[in-house]
Amino acid sequence: MNDFVFHSPTKFVFGRGYVDRTGTEMKQLGFEKVLVVYGQGSVERTGTLERVLASLDEAGITYVEAGGARPNPEVTFVREAIELARTHEVTGILAVGGGSSIDAAKAVSFGVPYDGDVWDFFAQKKPIEECLPLAVVLTLPAAGSEGSGSCVVSNDAENRKLGVSGDVFRPRLAIMDPELTFTLPAYQTAAGITDMIAHVCERYFSGVGAVPLTDGIACSIIRTLMSEAPKVLANPNNYDARANIMWAGTLAHNDLAGCGRSLSPTVRAGGWESHALEHELSAHHTEVTHGAGLAVVMPAWMRHVWRHDTKRFLSFARDVFGIEPEEGYESHRDAVYDAVTSAIKELQNFFGSIPKPVG
Amino acid sequence: MNDFVFHSPTKFVFGRGYVDRTGTEMKQLGFEKVLVVYGQGSVERTGTLERVLASLDEAGITYVEAGGARPNPEVTFVREAIELARTHEVTGILAVGGGSSIDAAKAVSFGVPYDGDVWDFFAQKKPIEECLPLAVVLTLPAAGSEGSGSCVVSNDAENRKLGVSGDVFRPRLAIMDPELTFTLPAYQTAAGITDMIAHVCERYFSGVGAVPLTDGIACSIIRTLMSEAPKVLANPNNYDARANIMWAGTLAHNDLAGCGRSLSPTVRAGGWESHALEHELSAHHTEVTHGAGLAVVMPAWMRHVWRHDTKRFLSFARDVFGIEPEEGYESHRDAVYDAVTSAIKELQNFFGSIPKPVG
Repeated sequence: MNDFVFHSPTKFVFGRGYVDRTGTEMKQLGFEKVLVVYGQGSVERTGTLERVLASLDEAGITYVEAGGARPNPEVTFVREAIELARTHEVTGILAVGGGSSIDAAKAVSFGVPYDGDVWDFFAQKKPIEECLPLAVVLTLPAAGSEGSGSCVVSNDAENRKLGVSGDVFRPRLAIMDPELTFTLPAYQTAAGITDMIAHVCERYFSGVGAVPLTDGIACSIIRTLMSEAPKVLANPNNYDARANIMWAGTLAHNDLAGCGRSLSPTVRAGGWESHALEHELSAHHTEVTHGAGLAVVMPAWMRHVWRHDTKRFLSFARDVFGIEPEEGYESHRDAVYDAVTSAIKELQNFFGSIPKPVG
Repeated sequence: MNDFVFHSPTKFVFGRGYVDRTGTEMKQLGFEKVLVVYGQGSVERTGTLERVLASLDEAGITYVEAGGARPNPEVTFVREAIELARTHEVTGILAVGGGSSIDAAKAVSFGVPYDGDVWDFFAQKKPIEECLPLAVVLTLPAAGSEGSGSCVVSNDAENRKLGVSGDVFRPRLAIMDPELTFTLPAYQTAAGITDMIAHVCERYFSGVGAVPLTDGIACSIIRTLMSEAPKVLANPNNYDARANIMWAGTLAHNDLAGCGRSLSPTVRAGGWESHALEHELSAHHTEVTHGAGLAVVMPAWMRHVWRHDTKRFLSFARDVFGIEPEEGYESHRDAVYDAVTSAIKELQNFFGSIPKPVG
């Protein structure tokens, strides 16, 4: 087990109807005047934004709104929101939405106290040391941004999509109300699940040897996602399945599934090859949903690399799919090939069994 | 999945030789003048205390020492340490040791800012709302107190051993250096592992239905402990096994293994029947190690109650031991009886296979 630092200070408040507690919970943590960051309309259509704002009013928290964060949020939106936050002298940020709104809000949270341009952080010109406190109401489980120290922003002018990491900007509070996800379209549900599985896989295939506890947790997350996915696709209002998926999305990316698998304790576990490839894809094609891109990229990446760490892929085959190399093959090599490629095929079949992310 | 609040804000700094980082890490979090709470000599004999104090000196953190916390720490020790902390006007607490030292330190941390007697909190006369910040150097993985919102203290005069819960007194920092556990005697190693398994089981058998993600994590923790235990008992210097056990001890009790299994989001998951029975035992017989008591109590409790939640015990049998009811029995009832009692027997065999906690 390699050395690690694990610091996930977010308070997760998880349950039915909990969106209406947003204001009370924020007030308890000292939030007073916030910038509310959200996306391009779904939180308005579903009534979620209205409920959130009502609960802020009730708790006596004042706010300014910054709507319009697009999927793969763009740095110009972030820059405008930073200006708005400064003009109104807010002392905290509230994101309402999925990974895009949360990542935009994170960038605002560390952009406000910084004199220069926020893109400097993504261009690695400047380390992130300070930020406004951030709360989150999660409506789309996928990116795990509600608990993670990750933030990814696009820069259309430069055709780039870059991420930064750091514990300092992890949310202080995450309101997680699985009922909010009942209205999610099957396609977005599926793309979210794909993203979660990818987050676990990137850490699992980090090139570090087995870490029984972390690996056991990682495989539990993947197995849960695979068992719960068909349930929500059959019945979008299946609360328990929605709840397990929502919580899995958080644990898939708050680094629990990477403890002991980092090459350095200050660096997140994993090579993040599939994510890097997918980011290039969606930087050039902003219409590609992140999870959809991953469903294509990841199995292809696996087929390309598995021979470099056969033992690891055999563990994956066994612990996720119950596939072990069969005896009686002419050569052990053939049996291993068969087990690993069967597992990759199973994963691809799973991605194919949920609403197809790409045509 | 039932509603829950999960807030585990502790920064875990985990790795080889990390005990020497104690001062630096504490300084980063703002600790300046602390009371160092420890036990009855082992941290002095092993040289751990010396290394910790040297790192405090180096970081410019001043300190006062309060050694002598006994196993099942006693409230008179806590009261004296509170006085010492007040006299020297410390602004933080550092525990060096296992659950007993940490629990004593926690009681000091919320006792200092309170005008009345610290036992009031345990006697449920007063809720815990305030505490001095607490850091921990863990030397004995067992109680999980380095990450938990639990604190158990004995009161000899009243023949009582009582616990309190609350997120407010969770440690801010936990230094976890598995190398410190190389010198742990086999008996204490085994008692610690028993305690960890019990922490997971209390939550698993909470009377709430299946929560696939939480249950998967719970069973991963138990399976890891069972697979790593023989390795450290065969070779006490097996770093990876020691590290997996140390981290398992934290996750067994920081409430991750209970998410969605609470009857109320503000109450910890589980009925804690085995712990309650064991606390009575060791309140009257302070020489009984907590883990040792649990190894006797828990399987007996399981045999007594399993018929009240057969489905749950069948899941436990399957997911921890791979035992399923065999077909071909005269009655399904016999097959279920056999599967469940086999699993309980396996657990008891495991407790028997590690150094026997009781003669």
